[in-house]
Amino acid sequence: MTIGILGGGQLGYMIALAGYPLGLHFRFLDPSPEAPVGRIAQRVTADYTDQAALEKFSSGLELVTYEFENVPVEAAKFLAERVSVYPPPAALEAAQDRLAEKGLFRKLGIATTEFVSVSNPAELDAAVKVLGLPAVLKTSRMGYDGKGQWILRTAQDVAKAKAELRAVTLILERFVPFSRELSVLAVRSRNGETAIYPLVENHHRSGILRLSLAPALRLQAPIQRAAENAARRVLETLKYAGVLAIEFFEHQGELLANEMAPRVHNSGHWTIEGAVTSQFENHLRAVLGLPLGSTGPTGQCAMLNLIGDLPESSEVLAVPDAHLHLYGKSPRPGRKLGHVTLRAGSPERLALRLSELPAFFHGPDFCLAAALTHSASLPA
Amino acid sequence: MTIGILGGGQLGYMIALAGYPLGLHFRFLDPSPEAPVGRIAQRVTADYTDQAALEKFSSGLELVTYEFENVPVEAAKFLAERVSVYPPPAALEAAQDRLAEKGLFRKLGIATTEFVSVSNPAELDAAVKVLGLPAVLKTSRMGYDGKGQWILRTAQDVAKAKAELRAVTLILERFVPFSRELSVLAVRSRNGETAIYPLVENHHRSGILRLSLAPALRLQAPIQRAAENAARRVLETLKYAGVLAIEFFEHQGELLANEMAPRVHNSGHWTIEGAVTSQFENHLRAVLGLPLGSTGPTGQCAMLNLIGDLPESSEVLAVPDAHLHLYGKSPRPGRKLGHVTLRAGSPERLALRLSELPAFFHGPDFCLAAALTHSASLPA
Repeated sequence: MTIGILGGGQLGYMIALAGYPLGLHFRFLDPSPEAPVGRIAQRVTADYTDQAALEKFSSGLELVTYEFENVPVEAAKFLAERVSVYPPPAALEAAQDRLAEKGLFRKLGIATTEFVSVSNPAELDAAVKVLGLPAVLKTSRMGYDGKGQWILRTAQDVAKAKAELRAVTLILERFVPFSRELSVLAVRSRNGETAIYPLVENHHRSGILRLSLAPALRLQAPIQRAAENAARRVLETLKYAGVLAIEFFEHQGELLANEMAPRVHNSGHWTIEGAVTSQFENHLRAVLGLPLGSTGPTGQCAMLNLIGDLPESSEVLAVPDAHLHLYGKSPRPGRKLGHVTLRAGSPERLALRLSELPAFFHGPDFCLAAALTHSASLPA
Repeated sequence: MTIGILGGGQLGYMIALAGYPLGLHFRFLDPSPEAPVGRIAQRVTADYTDQAALEKFSSGLELVTYEFENVPVEAAKFLAERVSVYPPPAALEAAQDRLAEKGLFRKLGIATTEFVSVSNPAELDAAVKVLGLPAVLKTSRMGYDGKGQWILRTAQDVAKAKAELRAVTLILERFVPFSRELSVLAVRSRNGETAIYPLVENHHRSGILRLSLAPALRLQAPIQRAAENAARRVLETLKYAGVLAIEFFEHQGELLANEMAPRVHNSGHWTIEGAVTSQFENHLRAVLGLPLGSTGPTGQCAMLNLIGDLPESSEVLAVPDAHLHLYGKSPRPGRKLGHVTLRAGSPERLALRLSELPAFFHGPDFCLAAALTHSASLPA
């Protein structure tokens, strides 16, 4: 049984590694001949808009899924006429447009930051009047890893943004001085079964995820419940199948939904070692209609992204219960090359493990100080 | 960095799946074009005796290891002149010959069953006089999964064996009415670091492993220490690098070494989910000279081999903390097609999980009764 995957990056790579023990085969489509999945699976190198290639790619597949949320919706729809595509293209459509996404959250009664659509300089002025400053201006489409976003703090920033405004739809969001970012990984089988992982606390730098603490520390039951309720509403509304990630801001004891990704997610990598069933395996179980696996944690984890540069493998592997994941990509500034998951029996032990990481990890990029502060400030 | 592996069966398959996250590439050599590794790695289809193929296979490899202990020693030696081969060919040599193997154990002061070499009918008579009946007659070379062994219970059995005696070296072993079979997985890095997994209890049927309980239940510290001492002596003597398995009989509170395998081992499959670091990853760390990972258990596991026939995946995956591993081989009687590992927080919970397995597993082949009896008879 062969599963087709759109996108041949590390997420697809880890889906395949989780799927081989289930007896599955994989075929990937990616525009880049460098996509690292080439060495572990069949790879078709073609543009997502190349219908002849999509046609050929889809031949003999059990189903198609994707690991990249900027796959053109047209490609997903073209394939969906030939073979089942999960998650449904409607989820892709909603997630690709911040206005549609926030509109969906709002329709489902899921709290979000306040936002206003902006498509010309006059609308930006009006939006700033409504929301006040600071505010965050984002392109409505094609943003990821902090790209396509600007914080507007002063009237001068607003004037500059107006001058540079392009003919694309934007969204202005009220700036929320949130206490932390949390994300939830939720999974729904095509049979309707759902399962939800515990919330994860995420730390970014330069717009890129650096560190996830999982489960999130000092996690209160009502917050977890709120995240689960929000996730279930989205899953059911979209008749979703697969893993869905939703990122929230925690602000004054409440969750504000920021965005969602209709795929396995970087903040879920800890589940490979840290949960009974990984997000990758559960994604496959979900799209195949197999029973979902437990999302329960097997310890307290920290996941550290390796961005642009790699540590010595031997220094990482010398740390007890440290797990190295390299994606087979050549180093380049800002590129996600791998991650390390540390697992421990308690937050205190995790803090000890983190302190044992080699010097490579003790710069500001890894946000370790935040992690250590959290674990040190736990209630007794 | 590309690792060469001799043998393209499920052991090699699982080594590759463990190695990809470490950034490794793999190239396999196997005489069969059906070897399942073909879909996840480069595969060279050739006989182990084909020197031109070995030469080509070895080109550009970082090192060579093997997943099959009946690789001709000549092939390992031929390769060792071109590239590092781990474990050392001397280990292969010792493990391929039961007399050499038992001689090594004896030399190192490791208790074994009593044995006598037999190469003709007169020697068989003499050996039976020394050891008494019942006794076990085995070919000294090329035995595995119970093949090439006969239990001699009566004088008639001895007469029949004499009539059928071929011109191969045999070994007659005293039959030990052991209480259980235990195995130890030990690993030594090419830097000399060692690590040892807890003993595992194994149950066979028709000479093939069906069930491993890991760690072994009612495991007393002196028994674990004895196994570790024996394993360390073998590892050091052979200047070993990689994973080594030694099977023991537990008899009257002592361990008798039965045989060893210079490779990752079926009784170590539980380590994928049940130990901090899997045997497959530790094998790779060892041959690469990377720090070894913790061999500590993360729960109480049962590993059940899927022989000749497969259950419905959905029925297995519906059991909490059940992990399915399929090897991508077509079904055939007696063939190892996959395994299932069940993990639980305690032996009692494991017994519950085992009882939840679908009907497929409740025939006599899976030796579940033994597992359930053990867990029910635990000391309070």
